[in-house]
Amino acid sequence: METTTSLAEYKILIDKALENYNIASSPKELYEPISYILSIGGKRMRPIILMMAHELFGGNPKEVVNQALAIEIFHNFTLVHDDIMDNAPVRRGQPTVHTKWNENIGILSGDVMFVLAYKLICESNPDNLKEVLDTFNKTAIGVCEGQQFDMNFELTSDVTIDDYIQMIRLKTAVLLGGGMQIGAILANASADDIIKINAFGENLGIAFQLQDDILDVYGDPDKFGKQVGGDIISNKKTYLLLKALEIAPEGTKQHLINVLKTTDNKSKVLEVTEIYNQLNIKGLSLEKVDFYFNLAMKNLDEIGVSEEQKQPLKSLAYRLMMRES
Amino acid sequence: METTTSLAEYKILIDKALENYNIASSPKELYEPISYILSIGGKRMRPIILMMAHELFGGNPKEVVNQALAIEIFHNFTLVHDDIMDNAPVRRGQPTVHTKWNENIGILSGDVMFVLAYKLICESNPDNLKEVLDTFNKTAIGVCEGQQFDMNFELTSDVTIDDYIQMIRLKTAVLLGGGMQIGAILANASADDIIKINAFGENLGIAFQLQDDILDVYGDPDKFGKQVGGDIISNKKTYLLLKALEIAPEGTKQHLINVLKTTDNKSKVLEVTEIYNQLNIKGLSLEKVDFYFNLAMKNLDEIGVSEEQKQPLKSLAYRLMMRES
Repeated sequence: METTTSLAEYKILIDKALENYNIASSPKELYEPISYILSIGGKRMRPIILMMAHELFGGNPKEVVNQALAIEIFHNFTLVHDDIMDNAPVRRGQPTVHTKWNENIGILSGDVMFVLAYKLICESNPDNLKEVLDTFNKTAIGVCEGQQFDMNFELTSDVTIDDYIQMIRLKTAVLLGGGMQIGAILANASADDIIKINAFGENLGIAFQLQDDILDVYGDPDKFGKQVGGDIISNKKTYLLLKALEIAPEGTKQHLINVLKTTDNKSKVLEVTEIYNQLNIKGLSLEKVDFYFNLAMKNLDEIGVSEEQKQPLKSLAYRLMMRES
Repeated sequence: METTTSLAEYKILIDKALENYNIASSPKELYEPISYILSIGGKRMRPIILMMAHELFGGNPKEVVNQALAIEIFHNFTLVHDDIMDNAPVRRGQPTVHTKWNENIGILSGDVMFVLAYKLICESNPDNLKEVLDTFNKTAIGVCEGQQFDMNFELTSDVTIDDYIQMIRLKTAVLLGGGMQIGAILANASADDIIKINAFGENLGIAFQLQDDILDVYGDPDKFGKQVGGDIISNKKTYLLLKALEIAPEGTKQHLINVLKTTDNKSKVLEVTEIYNQLNIKGLSLEKVDFYFNLAMKNLDEIGVSEEQKQPLKSLAYRLMMRES
């Protein structure tokens, strides 16, 4: 008998909560962008895993819908501000907020979303409120630090692979870990299990982001949803590029550096991919994905609940690893 | 015998707390701007009145230093983001954060300051935490709405005086009211007194901002600290301008509108001031300041503590009204 909530049910729960979420209407320049960014889709992975972590420890996912919404709204706030900083015109196939409106509206709507996230977090049980807030604050600071490191890396040539992993840990993974931690705290999980579910989320998040780097080069253009090779075109220091620069023999390395300077995007993507293929970068990157995925699985294994209760999170983790977009 | 804390002592308390406040160091691009903006001065009026409100209800101001810091850091966060939105190159006589660094750093440092403010707010007594957070959330949303209305008013010609008062209530006054409310909550003031101290702060804040509008035109250039006439040069729809447009006879009104279109700043300031003088705009504006100041005093009178305990706040309020900068 299936007693846990299915992935589709989680998605429905969070989509319905977003639909019913009451956003103020005046001043409309402030609130319309919030409705907009929340309506143009997204996997809702972060709120879903918060709810799953809650259920893992015996909680009812419906009781953490506010916190799940908070995490999704916080995530979207960071997207709105990041898109300004990254000069990104398109998000989920739609114009970004600062493109559809303007930068000032992007800054200020983002700020309000941040408060709205806190408001939802504050709906937590008073007994857990301080611990939930401490987790949320720590997570939010990590995400901002990650974004700053990401911007710094664009301007420095000596980024190491360790630096890179630390950056994606902060920018992407701590929010998965923090969200799961909040779900666990609100189910009154033990201190030890809370540490482990947080580590599970972080390691899964790192695996997820590394996989994103791979998909950017090796994804199926029909399924990926973004331009394949986008990271190559923008010279983004991804795991793939850093690994290639690390292991390439001197001649290949120099060739790669020269190709990165070219301006014909189509041949640039082809040539860099060709170098990656020569160096088996895809295989090496998949090994790194596996490394963090296995760490995550180990964290999950060590959590003190039944194997059966862990099944939904395990399948989700495997599903995320097999995604094509 | 003097039992309450003097204004100078409050200022020392908050300055020392800011000095001892430990700001992380890495990534430095994220944290240096925070130390910078907090170090270039400011009246520290907001944290001081939070502490005064706490003492009014029998609390020890030293016990709300974290919340006072939170309000000051929140205020500075809004300044950093507002300065980007307003394209302001100078703040307190120093380059603004986005001028000294860049806009991206301004956005992201501001975001982190917002989290740091929440972190400090979270240091509240668990019994009061939810109520303090609710107040802080409501205040933060009001401030963002006020900034949006302020930006909207630049683009619309039909701003009424009521619209304007509502805008400055949100943009400036709710933070004074909200800060005092937090101080009062943490001193376990009665629900009724909490409403009144909030109203006191808001009405005082409106009086304060209206007085700022007056100082911008009629301030002593040697004492004001900003360029006298700055609002006139930028065609800002202040109370003075809106009142002038409301009461001017048709000919004068047309003349004023024409002068506003001129590009010679020096003669523009002189001519607009001359029109204001003809219409007694300074006197009418001072009447409006008095109106809100008297409301604030009535709010304070109705609070259920002794006259003696109210003295420090009363003197501060009078002092604020007599300021020249």
